[in-house]
Amino acid sequence: MGPFLRDSAQVPEDADPPKPAAVVIPRTTEHVATSVKFAYDHELPVSIWAAGTGLAGGALPYEGGLVIAMHQMNSILEVDADARLATVQAGVIVQDLDSAVRKYGLFYAPDPASSARATIGGTIATNAGGLRCIAYGTTADHVAALTVVLADGSVISTGSRTIKNATGLNLTQLFVGSEGTLGIITKATVWLTPIPQGTPETFLASFDSIDDAGRAVVSMVKSAAELEVLEMLDATVTQWVEEDNHAGLAIPQAALIIGMAVGENAARSVDIACECAEHAGASEVRRQPGDGLMAVRKLSLPALQKRGVWVQGDTGVPVPRLPELIAKIEDIAEEEQHQVRIVAHVGDGNLHPMIEVVDNDWDTANRVTDRITAAAIELDGVISGEHGIGIFKHHELPMQFDEATLAAQHAIKKALDPKGILSPGRAI
Amino acid sequence: MGPFLRDSAQVPEDADPPKPAAVVIPRTTEHVATSVKFAYDHELPVSIWAAGTGLAGGALPYEGGLVIAMHQMNSILEVDADARLATVQAGVIVQDLDSAVRKYGLFYAPDPASSARATIGGTIATNAGGLRCIAYGTTADHVAALTVVLADGSVISTGSRTIKNATGLNLTQLFVGSEGTLGIITKATVWLTPIPQGTPETFLASFDSIDDAGRAVVSMVKSAAELEVLEMLDATVTQWVEEDNHAGLAIPQAALIIGMAVGENAARSVDIACECAEHAGASEVRRQPGDGLMAVRKLSLPALQKRGVWVQGDTGVPVPRLPELIAKIEDIAEEEQHQVRIVAHVGDGNLHPMIEVVDNDWDTANRVTDRITAAAIELDGVISGEHGIGIFKHHELPMQFDEATLAAQHAIKKALDPKGILSPGRAI
Repeated sequence: MGPFLRDSAQVPEDADPPKPAAVVIPRTTEHVATSVKFAYDHELPVSIWAAGTGLAGGALPYEGGLVIAMHQMNSILEVDADARLATVQAGVIVQDLDSAVRKYGLFYAPDPASSARATIGGTIATNAGGLRCIAYGTTADHVAALTVVLADGSVISTGSRTIKNATGLNLTQLFVGSEGTLGIITKATVWLTPIPQGTPETFLASFDSIDDAGRAVVSMVKSAAELEVLEMLDATVTQWVEEDNHAGLAIPQAALIIGMAVGENAARSVDIACECAEHAGASEVRRQPGDGLMAVRKLSLPALQKRGVWVQGDTGVPVPRLPELIAKIEDIAEEEQHQVRIVAHVGDGNLHPMIEVVDNDWDTANRVTDRITAAAIELDGVISGEHGIGIFKHHELPMQFDEATLAAQHAIKKALDPKGILSPGRAI
Repeated sequence: MGPFLRDSAQVPEDADPPKPAAVVIPRTTEHVATSVKFAYDHELPVSIWAAGTGLAGGALPYEGGLVIAMHQMNSILEVDADARLATVQAGVIVQDLDSAVRKYGLFYAPDPASSARATIGGTIATNAGGLRCIAYGTTADHVAALTVVLADGSVISTGSRTIKNATGLNLTQLFVGSEGTLGIITKATVWLTPIPQGTPETFLASFDSIDDAGRAVVSMVKSAAELEVLEMLDATVTQWVEEDNHAGLAIPQAALIIGMAVGENAARSVDIACECAEHAGASEVRRQPGDGLMAVRKLSLPALQKRGVWVQGDTGVPVPRLPELIAKIEDIAEEEQHQVRIVAHVGDGNLHPMIEVVDNDWDTANRVTDRITAAAIELDGVISGEHGIGIFKHHELPMQFDEATLAAQHAIKKALDPKGILSPGRAI
């Protein structure tokens, strides 16, 4: 398969991809506006391609549709270090922006796993998360202003360069996470953050009971510890990481918690977090200056990929309900006789169940995924914590939204895109 | 004038208030839905009354319209300390919620000046700010989920109880700050924050040049100092506070900066902030453990009120542009031969010009206000930083928004309120 035809979303390798009628590669907002106007006049479905790192299929082309590929809109237009703002074209790579601003003592806080390839526009359109959200929030929290091309080719400006703004509707946050359904983001002004000083500090805590691990996380989140990262691997994933890397990890019976603090309070924050872990019954707690132990988290995906094909699930529940969700996932896995492994951003309740795809049987994996979503929603959770809905979870929307709430979303979609040409049938 | 007839917005005392046809005092979401459905069927304009603390006239009644007064929807429905969430009816007073959750080691961070009277629903509908926004953001940053009655009486649920959520459009943030134009918030789930430990520390820094003060603020905001409050009074206001209170303040030639840090790093943060002030050329820097010096800020409004009637302006610019805005305001004041005093949340660029109303001449004061808005917008600022648009700034909207952007806002309004019954002619 060529470019613009599939993204990182998990689909069978032999799936027959839809063939778009044309791919436009704009360099300016005006190019995008002209192209969209053409699609609007001819009622062509439009998909927006950025870096192809999406995990929900939201950027896949439509048969006979128009693809707008944003990768050449990749200029960093301005860095205003005093105002802590940068303005970029939507196709700028996340990591490139971050690298460009560090010389000012600032960084770009959103850091999804795909940041070396994903674009600012794509990560805004999907409200991308990542590992550092417990400290810095998601991408939404770093967007100041947007330039957006609407379905009819008109160009609007949302937000402002001010920290506070109580002027008109918050269109900025309406477009953040709208997954290409309301308009095409061509330019973004984003907030930069002062680089924390001091040495980071990391810790690992092993738990033989998932309830104990859950209590540890709740107490950490409520404590004065200022953690930047708070992650979890299940026991099997921990064992696989250890098998592959011989890091000397004690394999827990239930879960391994991995945390990091940065800034001048790092050691103090890790003190508090380790006390929480011990108090909740951790079987082993280990800590270390620097960010070395974070490697354990990053090695989990390669360890999984080496051992199978997985649908990477993505759901979220309130932090205190994580142990219940994990217990339900174990029940579902047992009932379905299906392997589900768990990695999670436990600090914000965002859980990625890894659902094995056996013998290319995607239907079973998808059914298990839907059952896990249903379980999460019963626990006050959401269909997607950070990957979005796209095409893969579109059928799940009625699990979360009642008719009136879905109707309100569709009314807004229709108001901004009356012909329904932008990413139709996706996200909402 | 009786209740439900005027809010805190500055209008002439002898203004003839509009007379609504009826006032509904609901106790439940269903009561609100029934009332709004009635108004929808009969095409009555609806205004929403909470505590009457608004500063932009957004809650004032319509002649012959329906007032929905939310003060009896005042139950705190749930506090989930482990999840750091509280669910309340919209009419709960901000301070009452804060008081109710402190026993769990948590607090409700939004703290507008009106928090002893303002309601959760009203502060969400206006995205209220306040003194602590540089540390905690505005009200928007603390809203997890909403129950909203739409114009046709249907009830929708937005948001979630999860920290991360990438499911559907972000309707929550669309309703935050929409000033009653899109729906009526009847219930809110909000985030609570761990109470910082340690002793607060405050400082005052006097500047004889506004540019020096501006440079000090920029360097504080970019530094590692974690300030909770960063305020400014102009020289005259400082002098009036001193005249009334004999606090021993050194009267600066340009401005007094007031800052506070809380938490375990408070002293260190104030160290850094004071260094920034001295480096930028402060004529005097004074610091003190505890929050005592904050009184200086709080005494500024009484000092102003004692000396005249004022239109309390509200605008925002990027922090580095504050000195330019202040210089422009001084120019406007001189050209108009009109007194304008300045108090500001300088840490987030939100400036409140206090425009004197002489001999009940509101027209002149309003014209000066408009000129200041225009000056702010030229400096990449906004019409309103935290008070909202309401009726008083509605005519200014075209200063900030181009036609396409205003049209997009109106399209969304029309999609959710096709008959235009909710707060018509206000906010957008």
